[in-house]
Amino acid sequence: MTTTESTTEVTAERYAEVQHFYARQMRLLDDRDFPAFAATFTEDGEFSHTPGHAVSTRAGIVAELHEFHRRFDGDPVVRRHWFDMIVLDPAPGGALTASFYAYAITVRPGGDQVVGPSCLVRDVLVREAGQLRNRSRHVTQDRLTF
Amino acid sequence: MTTTESTTEVTAERYAEVQHFYARQMRLLDDRDFPAFAATFTEDGEFSHTPGHAVSTRAGIVAELHEFHRRFDGDPVVRRHWFDMIVLDPAPGGALTASFYAYAITVRPGGDQVVGPSCLVRDVLVREAGQLRNRSRHVTQDRLTF
Amino acid sequence: MTTTESTTEVTAERYAEVQHFYARQMRLLDDRDFPAFAATFTEDGEFSHTPGHAVSTRAGIVAELHEFHRRFDGDPVVRRHWFDMIVLDPAPGGALTASFYAYAITVRPGGDQVVGPSCLVRDVLVREAGQLRNRSRHVTQDRLTF
Repeated sequence: MTTTESTTEVTAERYAEVQHFYARQMRLLDDRDFPAFAATFTEDGEFSHTPGHAVSTRAGIVAELHEFHRRFDGDPVVRRHWFDMIVLDPAPGGALTASFYAYAITVRPGGDQVVGPSCLVRDVLVREAGQLRNRSRHVTQDRLTF
Repeated sequence: MTTTESTTEVTAERYAEVQHFYARQMRLLDDRDFPAFAATFTEDGEFSHTPGHAVSTRAGIVAELHEFHRRFDGDPVVRRHWFDMIVLDPAPGGALTASFYAYAITVRPGGDQVVGPSCLVRDVLVREAGQLRNRSRHVTQDRLTF
Repeated sequence: MTTTESTTEVTAERYAEVQHFYARQMRLLDDRDFPAFAATFTEDGEFSHTPGHAVSTRAGIVAELHEFHRRFDGDPVVRRHWFDMIVLDPAPGGALTASFYAYAITVRPGGDQVVGPSCLVRDVLVREAGQLRNRSRHVTQDRLTF
């Protein structure tokens, strides 16, 4: 990411790149490949996906995700995270801030399907070795904002 | 938007630009910043978002949105508009017609969440001072089309 | 699609093009223009959209869609297919593999609205005469994967 780009508006090319990055990233989470998901963050990345569960570092993210998914032990589910309405803004040092809407669809045997809580997600994205990575992600559930 | 572009197919660059424009635009609406939302329309813009509520001009859009949101007085909600499956076509004079699917997720305290009526939205987009703007938006609720 | 591109990563331009292609393609299906939908596949295209309903060739796709939609005879519905979180990868010979999340919203008179089964879709896309086309589409309903 050049200095020039970081000080100007976000290009359409960057916009599509971020969409694609998110699609790959969340597929890893939905497939429960936690180390690969954590590798989409910087080594010291911050991740706060549900109240009281803020962690940092890739190792911390992996541990948190293992802990979080224990709720599904004995409760087979398929989860699908959907993102939409991504707003990108340049941030200092060539970073990008992203904010967008999200929910997870949770599917259980027999066809029970729940469209999970509507969330607002705020990311800081940076580029390392040519790849986008999350320096941080903070998820806010709309139902908890009242 | 050059004359050449307006007479050829819509570029991928334009497609991403429109997605980003919509994400910023609807965040303004969901944040209830009605003047800023209205400023994403041309000064004489047309806005018809619900049956019997067609208005025009930015001032008219702001007034309509204040009126519409009175239904939420004493009923705290978070609303999140999602758009998907955007189809763009060039229109005369460098304009674009856009049509796409939309719904609003409405969240209330305690976690009650409703995925609002499925809609088809038809926009005419123009460029003013380098920025995309809505010359018009017409929203049709699918449930009212039978 | 040049040989160079097919052997490197998917560009942002290609990503937006695929999104737009899907938006046009599924509008045709939702509008029940089955021949036009089938024409977004290659002549020998494969289409498996629901268990036990794998067909091939454009004529086969049209026949299958007529058969499938008979369930809606006497049951007026509007259907809206939503796609999200598209992952693209280059495939041999300039093709692309795409996988993404999908559901259909089904709306009936009176406002009954169902967000249909969460699906994972796997496509192979090729370019013919400058246009993207599906060589194949395989849809898996998450509820049937347990």
